[in-house]
Amino acid sequence: MGKSKTDKPSVPLKRSQGLSIAIPASIVEDTPHLREKTYKIGQIGRASSIFRVEQIIIYSDKTKHNQTKEADLVASILKYMDIPQYLRKMLVKIDPQLSFVGILPPLRSPHHLFSKKQEELKVGMFRQGVIIDSKNGHSLVDIGVGKPVIIEESLTKRQRITVKLTSIGEKLTAVKLDESEIRIYWGFNVTVTKLPLAELTKKIGFDLIISTSKYGDEITEVFPQLKIAWKKSKKALVPFGSPTQGLKEILAKEGLEMLEYSGFTINMIPNQGVETVRSEEAVFSSLSLLNTLG
Amino acid sequence: MGKSKTDKPSVPLKRSQGLSIAIPASIVEDTPHLREKTYKIGQIGRASSIFRVEQIIIYSDKTKHNQTKEADLVASILKYMDIPQYLRKMLVKIDPQLSFVGILPPLRSPHHLFSKKQEELKVGMFRQGVIIDSKNGHSLVDIGVGKPVIIEESLTKRQRITVKLTSIGEKLTAVKLDESEIRIYWGFNVTVTKLPLAELTKKIGFDLIISTSKYGDEITEVFPQLKIAWKKSKKALVPFGSPTQGLKEILAKEGLEMLEYSGFTINMIPNQGVETVRSEEAVFSSLSLLNTLG
Repeated sequence: MGKSKTDKPSVPLKRSQGLSIAIPASIVEDTPHLREKTYKIGQIGRASSIFRVEQIIIYSDKTKHNQTKEADLVASILKYMDIPQYLRKMLVKIDPQLSFVGILPPLRSPHHLFSKKQEELKVGMFRQGVIIDSKNGHSLVDIGVGKPVIIEESLTKRQRITVKLTSIGEKLTAVKLDESEIRIYWGFNVTVTKLPLAELTKKIGFDLIISTSKYGDEITEVFPQLKIAWKKSKKALVPFGSPTQGLKEILAKEGLEMLEYSGFTINMIPNQGVETVRSEEAVFSSLSLLNTLG
Repeated sequence: MGKSKTDKPSVPLKRSQGLSIAIPASIVEDTPHLREKTYKIGQIGRASSIFRVEQIIIYSDKTKHNQTKEADLVASILKYMDIPQYLRKMLVKIDPQLSFVGILPPLRSPHHLFSKKQEELKVGMFRQGVIIDSKNGHSLVDIGVGKPVIIEESLTKRQRITVKLTSIGEKLTAVKLDESEIRIYWGFNVTVTKLPLAELTKKIGFDLIISTSKYGDEITEVFPQLKIAWKKSKKALVPFGSPTQGLKEILAKEGLEMLEYSGFTINMIPNQGVETVRSEEAVFSSLSLLNTLG
């Protein structure tokens, strides 16, 4: 059946939909120990990287409670995962919330893959780095090769940026890149908000919202329409519910029905063999399907 | 877009393909602690239940090593998960391998959902139970309602069976069912083998083998042919590789190419945003896609 490709797949590009997912602050509330909380949040991070999600939004699903602590834990672990290993020592402070990040598998996304050897650097390469010094219109950027890169720009110390190497002789020089100039998938941003789901969705603005629900239309039935909408979208959102409340209940508290909120409400797992699919499982299953839309 | 169904989805039925997955004995070899090993194996169990897998085969991926211990750990945890909660005390012996099963989410598959109240029993219901006594052509079966069920058959003590209730008066009576008579998805079997992948595949006999590889044909390209083969299949297998070796390397040790082994070799995650997708992630992503084939 067909031919198997033996050439290495090329570097993955960003999606044209600039895909965001939204997860509730209470996503690990049913998990007692920080160790498993870390693992589950890690699965969201892994799924986001595998399926090239650009933004993970943490929303408030219990607006009558202060969810700062829960949201902060989820955000801290996800942000940690997205930082290339060689920058973590410089960027991450000691934090009890991160006690178990050692159990997390690395992401190995394009912005993480990195040779420590100077001799493997090439002009034109993109690298993430951290500003270690800045004066007189110049900054030094640590990109993890033992020797800093010089850029002709004054920038705040400890800032994390992406540079493009412009020369690799005696001195390493580079220019700072704006994320929007990078076509390669370059990791995810983490956004924390105290807003409830529908309100934040409106505020950020999306041209396509795809909700998942076992009571929704079967994915196989809406696939053609979904594909058209997906291809047209410039900014798509896939929101997920919490361990104790589905999207339906979460939206109801804002006085909304699923159909008013979403362009599509889809049952991504027709005939599921269990009564409840967990949020982290729904993330994998849904993104796997949406990924095949292109 | 479409109507949202408000009626509860019906009980999931077995697949017409009698789907099996094969995982290597070394599936958690890269995970140092039993606690995370347990969690990962748990994810395989969860994915199998969600997507109605009927058989999980653990194969030997390092034929020069004795993998009994690794295979036994994977099998013990998966078998534990598939046992309804109310039968675990009777069926599961104390086992250090199961030290962390408390962190696993329950499956809540149809054969696990169960009311403890006698008054909710109905004639015709299916229940899993354990033989607690047997003599003179009768057996007593504990189905977790406080009062045993009588079946007119002599069976080995401690055996786990499925019964169909035939009367629920003063006495509870039932008949033993053969698994093949049950149309509802009724959990997974776990098969451990010392055989390498291709050999065991041949021995068991499958009419469809779907391998996953990032060098395979893109799922979107082969979807129509795959759907035809899937619908025709009576016994399908989806094998997965290990943390250190892809299917390609595993089959090469048996002198086989992917294309000789599989009817389909498919890249289930086009343009993956990470260098390596882990086995448990591949299981979720692949089964999610195959599930939409019907």
